[in-house]
Amino acid sequence: MRILILGGDGYLGWATAMHLSNRGHDVHAVDNYLRRRAHREAGTDSLTPILDSLPARAEAWKDVSGKEIGITEGDLTEWPLVERLFRDFQPEAIIHYGEMPSAPYSMISREHAVFTQYNNVVNTLNILFAMRDLAPDAHLVKLGTMGEYGTPDIDIEEGYLEVHHHGRSDTLPFPKLPHSMYHLSKVHDSHNIHFTCRVWGLRATDLNQGVVYGIHTPETQLDERLLTRFDYDEVFGTALNRFCLQAVIGHPLTVYGKGGQTRGYLNILDTLQCVELAALNPAAEGEMRVFNQFTEQFSIVELADRVQRAGAEYGLSVSVDHIENPRSEKEEHYYQAAHTKLLDLGLAPHALSETLIESMFGAIEQYRDRVITSSIVPKITWKAGLREPAAART
Amino acid sequence: MRILILGGDGYLGWATAMHLSNRGHDVHAVDNYLRRRAHREAGTDSLTPILDSLPARAEAWKDVSGKEIGITEGDLTEWPLVERLFRDFQPEAIIHYGEMPSAPYSMISREHAVFTQYNNVVNTLNILFAMRDLAPDAHLVKLGTMGEYGTPDIDIEEGYLEVHHHGRSDTLPFPKLPHSMYHLSKVHDSHNIHFTCRVWGLRATDLNQGVVYGIHTPETQLDERLLTRFDYDEVFGTALNRFCLQAVIGHPLTVYGKGGQTRGYLNILDTLQCVELAALNPAAEGEMRVFNQFTEQFSIVELADRVQRAGAEYGLSVSVDHIENPRSEKEEHYYQAAHTKLLDLGLAPHALSETLIESMFGAIEQYRDRVITSSIVPKITWKAGLREPAAART
Repeated sequence: MRILILGGDGYLGWATAMHLSNRGHDVHAVDNYLRRRAHREAGTDSLTPILDSLPARAEAWKDVSGKEIGITEGDLTEWPLVERLFRDFQPEAIIHYGEMPSAPYSMISREHAVFTQYNNVVNTLNILFAMRDLAPDAHLVKLGTMGEYGTPDIDIEEGYLEVHHHGRSDTLPFPKLPHSMYHLSKVHDSHNIHFTCRVWGLRATDLNQGVVYGIHTPETQLDERLLTRFDYDEVFGTALNRFCLQAVIGHPLTVYGKGGQTRGYLNILDTLQCVELAALNPAAEGEMRVFNQFTEQFSIVELADRVQRAGAEYGLSVSVDHIENPRSEKEEHYYQAAHTKLLDLGLAPHALSETLIESMFGAIEQYRDRVITSSIVPKITWKAGLREPAAART
Repeated sequence: MRILILGGDGYLGWATAMHLSNRGHDVHAVDNYLRRRAHREAGTDSLTPILDSLPARAEAWKDVSGKEIGITEGDLTEWPLVERLFRDFQPEAIIHYGEMPSAPYSMISREHAVFTQYNNVVNTLNILFAMRDLAPDAHLVKLGTMGEYGTPDIDIEEGYLEVHHHGRSDTLPFPKLPHSMYHLSKVHDSHNIHFTCRVWGLRATDLNQGVVYGIHTPETQLDERLLTRFDYDEVFGTALNRFCLQAVIGHPLTVYGKGGQTRGYLNILDTLQCVELAALNPAAEGEMRVFNQFTEQFSIVELADRVQRAGAEYGLSVSVDHIENPRSEKEEHYYQAAHTKLLDLGLAPHALSETLIESMFGAIEQYRDRVITSSIVPKITWKAGLREPAAART
């Protein structure tokens, strides 16, 4: 299958490109290095040392595996690039990770909020028009986020809700309460995609993904040149990855507020499975499927507790700090989200285990001299952006 | 009250500016002449002759009424302009008509879709950030559209839906099925505004307006220099206004498809009342209210029938043509939308009457030599944009 991977230089994009190339697909990866630039501007970096460019990574991949990954370096908000890409490659599936992926980044300032929504909405619109005009049978596999739903006081379903109201009923898009300017951009995308499926008959699968953890995939372990990035900083790092790093360097685990915030989580290995399952089982013409892509739910304090226990096992002394929550979010709430549709397609989940956490400790220790500790404590608040640091203890 | 009117050069914006100025408010109007430019590019124009610029209109208004309307000519997607406006004027209410308002325009091409979403989403984000940082107690009165809801198979409520699901319940944003790239931009705005109310405590009222009809308000009738614009072309014209014009010039009424499409409608006089009622009764801190702003529901064939009957009364021979529907929409569907909240605030509706339609005939006749007939039959299709004309008869 000819598979286009948008955002192919990222944490998941690069790992997916190698995984699908390894499985025999014809893979072409695109990236504009947005995340690398944001890291340089902020003085932060990936824990893992990654090669300098996508062509260098593809070169190393070919060297190790004998397989080719096509590369385009460029910006998907630029239509001529998108048009050329679709004309030349004629994708059968498009896996769309190519967006600005950080909630805190989108809350830094007005400029960051506008950029995030502009970048994500416009590049997705470009892809939808390219599909309509150049690849009408292709299947869009779009990375959304569980954060689109927020934390409603009812069970979260997979994309749609059967509503009964005043004696009538209809199946309608699940109402959204997104958490940040970034999460809003994904809600905007979801509405745009749904419209183009309804009106133009496009095929799409929106993967509302939970928080991903893990450093390695079978391919990243083949050669150090094939490592994927691993972020732990305030902007691009996510809960479990950051906690594991904090445990290794002896920093208290930074729990935001009470820590009752509950979200869905999954192993990076399961992301690879899910994306492949979606691509191999395309949506019907005119259908926008939504899958909730996570395997387990945890609250932040539960995660911290797990890392603390695995640390004790491993010989690390791990403490937990409840710091003032820089975000505006409920710290105690109901959370029950459906996630059966990917299991129905054959997903075999990797549950979070002490062994996995300990293996992450081991991988992180290898690169601990690369840790930039100043990037760990949050400075961006939902109320005021980057103006006032919020490091005070609660 | 210091009231900022964004989009103050438009059909409703200019009428609202004069109305609120007449009622003693301190009014400042902003526009970048987007609609005038779009008309020039398409070779279309307002039926009514309007003065060349907002400063000229404000001058004429001062001449006639003795009252001042402040003017800023500029683009709300440019932050320095928005910042200066909020700093200098310190608005207490912001009435936001300042968006690209046409569904067909947004469907012309990729460029038009991207421009519509960029323009509407970014200028609204700018206003929200200006409110947060420069006018946190101000009240945003945002013009949304009934088209955000689409045509679900259940009753449409005012912005929110009480959902009962698996034994639990919550009040959530009403699910949206927008009709076009333009309507999508308004859905994006609604989500962005809701977020800033929840997180920053802003006050907002989203007016999901139906289709507005009418030519005159008390102020436009004071002097020909005070006329507001009246669009009847494919891009900016709307159903009843266009039908009245077609009746006058002897063109068959262009019903799209079966004509069972049902929407909410209101008189321009009621728009002025609604906007004023919303401004005088602001939302609470952190509240985003949603009002469905229309007074009556009609299907397109019902409207055509009313215009035909009023025409017979008036001495016009009016025929009706069912032309191929350029839009992708249901032509027969359930439609029942709540609209009680503005009535609760004191709205006294003007129902659509034969007398009103006949008075529109009279006003249109005055300017019938200005009609550009080539702009009446639709050429923009939802499936393919402006590429293939869709004028063939069904």
